[in-house]
Amino acid sequence: MTTKQIVLAARPNGTPILNDFRFEDIELDELQQGEVLLQGMYYSVDPYMRGRMNEGKSYVPPFELNKAIEGGVLATVLESKSDLFKTGDVVLGSLPWSEKMIASDKNLQKIESTVESLTYYLGILGMTGLTAYFGLMHIGKPKAGETVVVSGAAGAVGIVVGQIAKIHGARVIGIAGSDEKASLLKQEFGYDDVINYKTTGNIKNAIANLCPNGVDVYFDNVGGEISDAVIQNLNFHARIALCGQISLYNSTKIPLGPRIQPMLLTRSVLMQGFIISNFQKDFPEGIAQLSKWVNEGKLKFTETIIEGFDQLPAALLGLFKGENKGKMIVKA
Amino acid sequence: MTTKQIVLAARPNGTPILNDFRFEDIELDELQQGEVLLQGMYYSVDPYMRGRMNEGKSYVPPFELNKAIEGGVLATVLESKSDLFKTGDVVLGSLPWSEKMIASDKNLQKIESTVESLTYYLGILGMTGLTAYFGLMHIGKPKAGETVVVSGAAGAVGIVVGQIAKIHGARVIGIAGSDEKASLLKQEFGYDDVINYKTTGNIKNAIANLCPNGVDVYFDNVGGEISDAVIQNLNFHARIALCGQISLYNSTKIPLGPRIQPMLLTRSVLMQGFIISNFQKDFPEGIAQLSKWVNEGKLKFTETIIEGFDQLPAALLGLFKGENKGKMIVKA
Repeated sequence: MTTKQIVLAARPNGTPILNDFRFEDIELDELQQGEVLLQGMYYSVDPYMRGRMNEGKSYVPPFELNKAIEGGVLATVLESKSDLFKTGDVVLGSLPWSEKMIASDKNLQKIESTVESLTYYLGILGMTGLTAYFGLMHIGKPKAGETVVVSGAAGAVGIVVGQIAKIHGARVIGIAGSDEKASLLKQEFGYDDVINYKTTGNIKNAIANLCPNGVDVYFDNVGGEISDAVIQNLNFHARIALCGQISLYNSTKIPLGPRIQPMLLTRSVLMQGFIISNFQKDFPEGIAQLSKWVNEGKLKFTETIIEGFDQLPAALLGLFKGENKGKMIVKA
Repeated sequence: MTTKQIVLAARPNGTPILNDFRFEDIELDELQQGEVLLQGMYYSVDPYMRGRMNEGKSYVPPFELNKAIEGGVLATVLESKSDLFKTGDVVLGSLPWSEKMIASDKNLQKIESTVESLTYYLGILGMTGLTAYFGLMHIGKPKAGETVVVSGAAGAVGIVVGQIAKIHGARVIGIAGSDEKASLLKQEFGYDDVINYKTTGNIKNAIANLCPNGVDVYFDNVGGEISDAVIQNLNFHARIALCGQISLYNSTKIPLGPRIQPMLLTRSVLMQGFIISNFQKDFPEGIAQLSKWVNEGKLKFTETIIEGFDQLPAALLGLFKGENKGKMIVKA
């Protein structure tokens, strides 16, 4: 049986291009005991994948050249030689960007949906929601009445962070890249106000105006000049959850910026980098809490779903141009 | 009764100069009930004082122009209208840079020395020792077998940090500015090795060589390029205690440097700025622990004592040239 997969053809030099990916037709092996044959349905497309396209030590191993890209995938079981799954089951796993794939049953999770959309398991009830939940609750620790600023607010993680901060009584200001995103965040996701960093002029002043009591928590998805502006507005004992730095992922050397340590020192600020696997032992608690809020209607989510397996590379590149609102997903 | 005091004559533009200070003869008021007349004995000279010479919001209020500089002072009581202190008592307080001064009895602490030197109460048993203790134990949290790097290692705080880290079983590498300081740290204060940043060439490589297992805790007193080099060598889950940034205190605008957030993010690093007053409620515990170690001979200390009240401004400027080994003190 043959299938089509997408491999890393070249390590990007700066911003990735379509030629860094290559489509290949491959022959699948014979199904072995303990394995399932899967048909990919929904493919998760995430900023952290950019890091895996580089060589070098990071928190997840780099993708290998000429091997399939991997990520979160929802798939259906076409054929099973496993006692754990039967034909027709829907499973979630870290799987190759391949139309069909053979996988060991060990690293798959059966999904029996209790929420409206299956794709939520790639997003708000998956790594995305858990990243928002643990980063905000374990590092940001917003208190009622405090001010929380979220960069990349219209991204998959950002829309969840803002809502969880509101649930805890904070004032929430977002930073996003279009008026359309700003309206969405205010109207659908409860943000108190949103700065369009592309049109606002002086971001530092814009933050100062919208945060007259200063910034207590900064949930940072983007880094760079937006973070410089937020950091100038931090309060004493502020907390920065370092979740992403998407504005810098395509830099070819370490970018320069204002040194932040004097500000963090004189204001007793905490900055903590994290990845979601740091909180692995608490995942069940996180999923339970997120599911509860979703089912109670307290937590909403949005996705940008692009149709067609062949669109996966373009969808990933789109993240760096801000083409997504919420979670970026490709439907095969 | 007249006395001599040192006032802030001008706010420095960059590195302070002697002309930023002025000596004045003043008339002391009549002693009131609840007050004592003091004779200054030992004056603490500390890097954080540079920040108070600037205008603007910081963790301690700025010195006022044409008013006396203030700092930690050990003094003897010449005359008392207080029930708490009698003539001849030795007291510690935040007091003006004045040869004699009148002070309320409310903010003074009576010193009855249980250690060899009275001046220890300005240093290892005072703010200096507490800064080292709480910064290392509450933020750095070194574990046995981990590697701790200390910048400004031969400064008052640095020599204490290294010894406390050794008490907890860590490997300790210092960074200092002369071979003489490096020898002192290794021979007297138990540092496993020390880098002379002025002669070592590539600091990043020097750290990598001396820390083959990477850096788990970075206690930062200096900032700037030395910190850039340490940060390149951090381990996953490393902790940075931001205690001082003396290399940057004389900058006239926010200095540029490599952006550190991507590194802190991908390695799940914690960075925490602090000032010693954050730990005020735990001071008694800290002083008890430090006194115990000093009395057991586990914790040694060194001071650079400069003679003459008139030398106070020069002593402060000397901190920025690395003229001190350990605590800088002026003896009146």
